[in-house]
Amino acid sequence: MTASSPSHWSSAVSDITPEDVYVRGYPIQSLMGSLPFSAITYLVVRSRLPTPGEARMMDIILSSILDYGLQKAGTVAARAVVSVNPQMTAGLGAGVLAAGENAMSPEQAGRFISDTCKSWKQSGQPMEAASKQLVSELRAAGRRVPGFGHPVFRGVDPRAEKLRIAAVETGVWGEANEWYAAIHAAFRAATNKPDLVLNDVGMLAGIMTQMGFTPQEMAGIAILSTFPGLIAHISEELRSGVRNRIIADQNVDYARARHDLALDMKARGWSE
Amino acid sequence: MTASSPSHWSSAVSDITPEDVYVRGYPIQSLMGSLPFSAITYLVVRSRLPTPGEARMMDIILSSILDYGLQKAGTVAARAVVSVNPQMTAGLGAGVLAAGENAMSPEQAGRFISDTCKSWKQSGQPMEAASKQLVSELRAAGRRVPGFGHPVFRGVDPRAEKLRIAAVETGVWGEANEWYAAIHAAFRAATNKPDLVLNDVGMLAGIMTQMGFTPQEMAGIAILSTFPGLIAHISEELRSGVRNRIIADQNVDYARARHDLALDMKARGWSE
Amino acid sequence: MTASSPSHWSSAVSDITPEDVYVRGYPIQSLMGSLPFSAITYLVVRSRLPTPGEARMMDIILSSILDYGLQKAGTVAARAVVSVNPQMTAGLGAGVLAAGENAMSPEQAGRFISDTCKSWKQSGQPMEAASKQLVSELRAAGRRVPGFGHPVFRGVDPRAEKLRIAAVETGVWGEANEWYAAIHAAFRAATNKPDLVLNDVGMLAGIMTQMGFTPQEMAGIAILSTFPGLIAHISEELRSGVRNRIIADQNVDYARARHDLALDMKARGWSE
Amino acid sequence: MTASSPSHWSSAVSDITPEDVYVRGYPIQSLMGSLPFSAITYLVVRSRLPTPGEARMMDIILSSILDYGLQKAGTVAARAVVSVNPQMTAGLGAGVLAAGENAMSPEQAGRFISDTCKSWKQSGQPMEAASKQLVSELRAAGRRVPGFGHPVFRGVDPRAEKLRIAAVETGVWGEANEWYAAIHAAFRAATNKPDLVLNDVGMLAGIMTQMGFTPQEMAGIAILSTFPGLIAHISEELRSGVRNRIIADQNVDYARARHDLALDMKARGWSE
Repeated sequence: MTASSPSHWSSAVSDITPEDVYVRGYPIQSLMGSLPFSAITYLVVRSRLPTPGEARMMDIILSSILDYGLQKAGTVAARAVVSVNPQMTAGLGAGVLAAGENAMSPEQAGRFISDTCKSWKQSGQPMEAASKQLVSELRAAGRRVPGFGHPVFRGVDPRAEKLRIAAVETGVWGEANEWYAAIHAAFRAATNKPDLVLNDVGMLAGIMTQMGFTPQEMAGIAILSTFPGLIAHISEELRSGVRNRIIADQNVDYARARHDLALDMKARGWSE
Repeated sequence: MTASSPSHWSSAVSDITPEDVYVRGYPIQSLMGSLPFSAITYLVVRSRLPTPGEARMMDIILSSILDYGLQKAGTVAARAVVSVNPQMTAGLGAGVLAAGENAMSPEQAGRFISDTCKSWKQSGQPMEAASKQLVSELRAAGRRVPGFGHPVFRGVDPRAEKLRIAAVETGVWGEANEWYAAIHAAFRAATNKPDLVLNDVGMLAGIMTQMGFTPQEMAGIAILSTFPGLIAHISEELRSGVRNRIIADQNVDYARARHDLALDMKARGWSE
Repeated sequence: MTASSPSHWSSAVSDITPEDVYVRGYPIQSLMGSLPFSAITYLVVRSRLPTPGEARMMDIILSSILDYGLQKAGTVAARAVVSVNPQMTAGLGAGVLAAGENAMSPEQAGRFISDTCKSWKQSGQPMEAASKQLVSELRAAGRRVPGFGHPVFRGVDPRAEKLRIAAVETGVWGEANEWYAAIHAAFRAATNKPDLVLNDVGMLAGIMTQMGFTPQEMAGIAILSTFPGLIAHISEELRSGVRNRIIADQNVDYARARHDLALDMKARGWSE
Repeated sequence: MTASSPSHWSSAVSDITPEDVYVRGYPIQSLMGSLPFSAITYLVVRSRLPTPGEARMMDIILSSILDYGLQKAGTVAARAVVSVNPQMTAGLGAGVLAAGENAMSPEQAGRFISDTCKSWKQSGQPMEAASKQLVSELRAAGRRVPGFGHPVFRGVDPRAEKLRIAAVETGVWGEANEWYAAIHAAFRAATNKPDLVLNDVGMLAGIMTQMGFTPQEMAGIAILSTFPGLIAHISEELRSGVRNRIIADQNVDYARARHDLALDMKARGWSE
């Protein structure tokens, strides 16, 4: 049986003995209370202890998305589900599915940063020249750069700025961030949009790339940040007394076509 | 290793040989086209071939819920999810979670009917007397009877009536239905609500109890009925161009509290 | 508010009046029993009545996957979930998530067929020449063709053949199928693998492309085919008495690393 | 429109202004880095700032479950799903559904503790007498007490003990814990099982009851504790190269019935 046999499994996340559970090689009883949960999150996902700086950065990352009221599709989905099926797990199941290409996930930006950073380093080109060339290629191909732009903020996205400062202070800031910032500068110049921000999702992606997370792990961590909010919203919904969330008719355009079944069946060749 | 060992499995649903898949003992290639999908659904879940009457009843059951526009929480959840994460599977995953205690599921009614029917039969009492006694006990305990009442219909729920006629015509109608109808009559009399309907979910539950489905299987079959609608809504949403479904601010009461973090931390005992 | 406003919805799937629900413009009460569920599935997803041939093809499609014992990841996931959380909805939610790139979904093949078929038609080239050229381009780019090959079958996949015959007999077979068959022939010739089969997933994708389904809808319909099996497996699991499905230790390679937390924290810069 | 209208929403979790997001009344930018993520989790779910003691207790709670190798059904489900559909969100969606009645959730124990504690306080009885009476009633009714017993540990469950000490040290320990401990003592005495442990799930439930969480919120927090492990396992699975997790045939008892379709259809009344 090989490592990729579909009924044989390998894992280095944790293992169990009769006395304890070993998480990434550390007894869980020694972890509890010795390291903050955010540091343990880093350990569990990245498979090594963080430095205090990395642990602090991780904590700030986990605190950076949190919640977005009813302007977040995952919250709408989670609450709709429990209005009918009043189970915490069911609401959480729906809520975590609502992160992806269109919102709430640094995965696309993370993939862009790590892929282009790798190509640049293989090329041996200076950063500035390479970033300018990449931007011009992307624009020629009509491709957008994930992580740029914001509906409200111009110049600087304050949350992104806070993340950037934290990354510098905690010693996490590095090459991947510099590379992404260079693309940002090149993009601003090439499009003549000096106010276009590097937004919070882009900044998160850059920092997590530098911290060694894969793009898919970044999606998981972003969802983890919103998990307390999902719990709170589901709990709020369960207390609300609403049974079966719906969209009011005035907020829906229904086509309201009317057809005659017997007539149409005949026309389609259905005999009596 | 016993049957209930957590790493040993037993199954009678299907098994695979190099040449074919055997579904409940029949080669899948012989099933395809020989029986309608609704009959195969009965076979797969109930583990025996249906009669033509049972197959027809099954088909009508699967066609009896279908869709409910945007007045169905599962549709709202499914569309919200794919507005952010444009994957059919993600939308379906959220959609099927939205059936339960508060709507869309005959499970509660099915459990009520099969439990009370069993007790009645063990008691040896005549049906009418037993149903009257049960209703009076339920009312004394303040318990509602699942499957009774409707926001619009009085006297008869036309969809329930259509299901009832089909059950009689296909030879499915039986003791469980009679028992539930007796409870309905007793309840109408005891509450002096002669117009209270036995609704479509109640009728579905009664018919599926008679057909031998467990309450949990009934939930599954109700969701199966709505599956084509879920696919259609998700497809519609994916084409809509909406990115991130939200609830407009005018439809939300936000508490909008404002607190001072430094002050409150001090008050809670956090030192600088 | 425009059609793409994130809090305004449009739908043509169904709408509700006080008397009835109109599904694609037909009162649901007229649909129940007039058309088989598989024909209604076509109507709901494709938004028009099928011909009897299309309805029959749809029925055969829905009967063509069904179940695959414990050799299907979605079944493993669904049963694992309900072994801990004994809710039909929870099991179904997990089960429907397990279709995608690696198995159980005609989506990739459907996208390949519709994209390449469109390009071919725009090119004005004869089919044979175009398919040969496409195959040589794909091979040069190292891209695989979805829907070709099978672990067991050589020459012909019997289930695919059954689907093909049904598509011809029901009048559904058409240009998309011919185009995909031409690619298959060109691929067999170019790779000198005359026995390489066009498998059942590929055939399903070709037929559903011809029937006008989008690739994402094909994924939904494939999952719909497996839904009765999911219900049956979950029901079987709920009756099994197993609490918490696990993988037995002999089927897992655990890394079983052991580290000293105090030592490692010190090394990483954590002070006492 | 009332608070319980199914298309009107209320929320106190967070709200958004053009400049910032206010989470439970605090600007998110002020929260990031000022409080650890576990303290923010308490704030978001419980709607007030924790004391430093409560924050520390919360952190230890979040670090107390973490992971359980492949001996946890949710991990099996999550990995099975992504082996076919390689999306982080899909795996997380399946993973969070696997907590409930049979494992991984303090919800049942939490409900037991808060319900019985409330009844006791309304009764005005002394704690010891009340707990003895409750235990004798439960035993007469054949009801089990959630949170008692462990497959390995006798006398003391070391993880529960660690949680207990932390609750005392952080000032969280209180009446609900005393009440549950009294039931434990009464149960040990009544059943003559002096070694029966109060397990970690029971201890978690008692502590979280004391901290003011609802039973459903406890389920959410337990799942949150396992979230980093889910991310890590899904990431491990995505790297494994396995396509479609299955259960090997030697671990399954298949019924392998064989039937004749034509014969059985005839017997069931299907005409040619």
